[in-house]
Amino acid sequence: MRPLRIAMVGPVATSIPPPRSSSVELFTSLLTEGLVARGHHITLFATGTSRTSANLHVTLQKGYGEELSLWPWELCEMLNLAAALERAPDFDVIHYQAMSWPISLPMTRLVSTPLVQTVHHAPGSDEIGLWSRYPEARFIAISNEQAARLAGLNVVATIHHGVDMETFRFSAAPQDYLLYLGRFTEGKGVLQAIEVARRTGRRLILAAAENDYYRVCVAPHVDGDQIVYAGEVGHAEKVALIGGAQALVYPLQSAEPFGLVLIEAMACGTPVAALDRGAVREIVDEGITGGVFSSLDDLVAGVSAVAALNRACVREHASARFGLPRMIDAYVAAYSRLVAAARDADAGWRTDGPRARALISGTGL
Amino acid sequence: MRPLRIAMVGPVATSIPPPRSSSVELFTSLLTEGLVARGHHITLFATGTSRTSANLHVTLQKGYGEELSLWPWELCEMLNLAAALERAPDFDVIHYQAMSWPISLPMTRLVSTPLVQTVHHAPGSDEIGLWSRYPEARFIAISNEQAARLAGLNVVATIHHGVDMETFRFSAAPQDYLLYLGRFTEGKGVLQAIEVARRTGRRLILAAAENDYYRVCVAPHVDGDQIVYAGEVGHAEKVALIGGAQALVYPLQSAEPFGLVLIEAMACGTPVAALDRGAVREIVDEGITGGVFSSLDDLVAGVSAVAALNRACVREHASARFGLPRMIDAYVAAYSRLVAAARDADAGWRTDGPRARALISGTGL
Repeated sequence: MRPLRIAMVGPVATSIPPPRSSSVELFTSLLTEGLVARGHHITLFATGTSRTSANLHVTLQKGYGEELSLWPWELCEMLNLAAALERAPDFDVIHYQAMSWPISLPMTRLVSTPLVQTVHHAPGSDEIGLWSRYPEARFIAISNEQAARLAGLNVVATIHHGVDMETFRFSAAPQDYLLYLGRFTEGKGVLQAIEVARRTGRRLILAAAENDYYRVCVAPHVDGDQIVYAGEVGHAEKVALIGGAQALVYPLQSAEPFGLVLIEAMACGTPVAALDRGAVREIVDEGITGGVFSSLDDLVAGVSAVAALNRACVREHASARFGLPRMIDAYVAAYSRLVAAARDADAGWRTDGPRARALISGTGL
Repeated sequence: MRPLRIAMVGPVATSIPPPRSSSVELFTSLLTEGLVARGHHITLFATGTSRTSANLHVTLQKGYGEELSLWPWELCEMLNLAAALERAPDFDVIHYQAMSWPISLPMTRLVSTPLVQTVHHAPGSDEIGLWSRYPEARFIAISNEQAARLAGLNVVATIHHGVDMETFRFSAAPQDYLLYLGRFTEGKGVLQAIEVARRTGRRLILAAAENDYYRVCVAPHVDGDQIVYAGEVGHAEKVALIGGAQALVYPLQSAEPFGLVLIEAMACGTPVAALDRGAVREIVDEGITGGVFSSLDDLVAGVSAVAALNRACVREHASARFGLPRMIDAYVAAYSRLVAAARDADAGWRTDGPRARALISGTGL
């Protein structure tokens, strides 16, 4: 197979990989490095602070999340994307990772190189209504839940995120606590996690960056004994915290399109006790890697059973379903289909004109 | 002269012309209609609610200011701009009117048709720093004050706005009040206008849409006698209010790149008493169309002299300097230079290659 020439357009809020927990940047780094390791020719469009084995095309020295004079953030993202579009003939595929809405969407008809985008949130119907003005624009969904939200758009593949099993080492013997890992927001359900700890009489460790929601709503519950705040943690401390947890508590209140922390927990052998929201049900396998509950009462009642799951099986299952090789395979396959479709469309143009192109467009690629 | 084929990309917050006072949409309409009247082929990219004698390319049926499901506004603006870029070969020039920052900027290198942008605010140095990544991107400034802020960028022309003298009729005999006309913000100086009225013992009429700033900061000063609030006014009422005013009070606190209301007042023969901020000094001619003061004390002391200026001379001067024909002439000349430069660059490419293009780029067009 001929190596693919991919423009990977990362977010430019911070470096890739990110200094702290930022799932879009982490995912972009994993995908980029995985593709390079397979021999593909990847150019990463990102900040000068990024570290990669791909070709690095620097558009901003620092990210707009770090250098506040870089404003508005949408312009920063557009500068970075435009740098890739200007070099479109150098690439087989341009892949844009959207921090929020897909800035790349209106560019769909301006470049002949296939442009594909991944959004990393759960878009609402109003957003989809606006996006559907570009029915041919290509999306790679990150879960079936997200793909369903993208109904009517051109979803060319659905690919679950992967986790680097090497850097999330297995922990056979946990300590005595539950773990909440994620931003402090109402939607992530940190208050519900505290309720689970209280009602089950278990300890709970909270780890995330301090913010206003933490100070106002969460801190009053932190007693340093049953409910402990560990601050924002780096990778090593995060792996240690996950490995020591009996279970990750994930009482999500609003839909999320994936949940990287779920597969990171599983990689360490730590099972997950989650509420059935967003993509949770397609990530967590009931009775194998955790429990998916329809109510907080059920979750409270089920935590013991989740914590008792076989941790070696949890890791094994995580490796099979969410190992990086599977994710990289799937992206290579998706990119290859886009390249083949573009080549066929191009050939169609030359022989049959618009009719052939219309037929090929019908394949959804 | 061959008619120019211009893509006029208006803002899509509301219709063009706007239902209420919105200076960017009003300017876009005046420019569009003026160019059509000269026989040029204009395609206006705008909402379906717009009214124009140009070809109307509708991208959104309603504006994002009216239909709140259209979100984020940046995507709406991009959809509208992209529609013009997709048709780039149909046009000699594409002109984008930016409501805020120039979304068009990162598109500079993606189209061969000359793309020019007008921003309608006073950009700060941080913004200019980011914009300067596209040193070749073409700007038309709306005042020398704004052009100075755009230093280092490619400002191809500076063109003052014009006013339709027909629709702002002359009023020879004003009534007994001063007028404040503009949004209620700290930067527009409404509180200073009230201070001027108090200290000079004159009546003041305030006309603008009610907002939070009005309710909290302005309303307590409104007594319905000396300080009167007339609400938000339509065009006819606005012309009547201006015509009846002894002077327009314009105690600007922050820099503005133009000030459409200044030339609207002058068109009615109403002189202007303004603070020396932003572009005021290049719009108001001291002792002819008004007074430009360096402090509020000076403005208070000078209001009587301003109100005593010859109103017929004010209008005559406004007509000469800010009549629409002058503005349309200037835009046609600027567009024509862009077209000629693009044609020469194209010819240069064909004969001398990159070197010729570099030389031509040096002309700043």
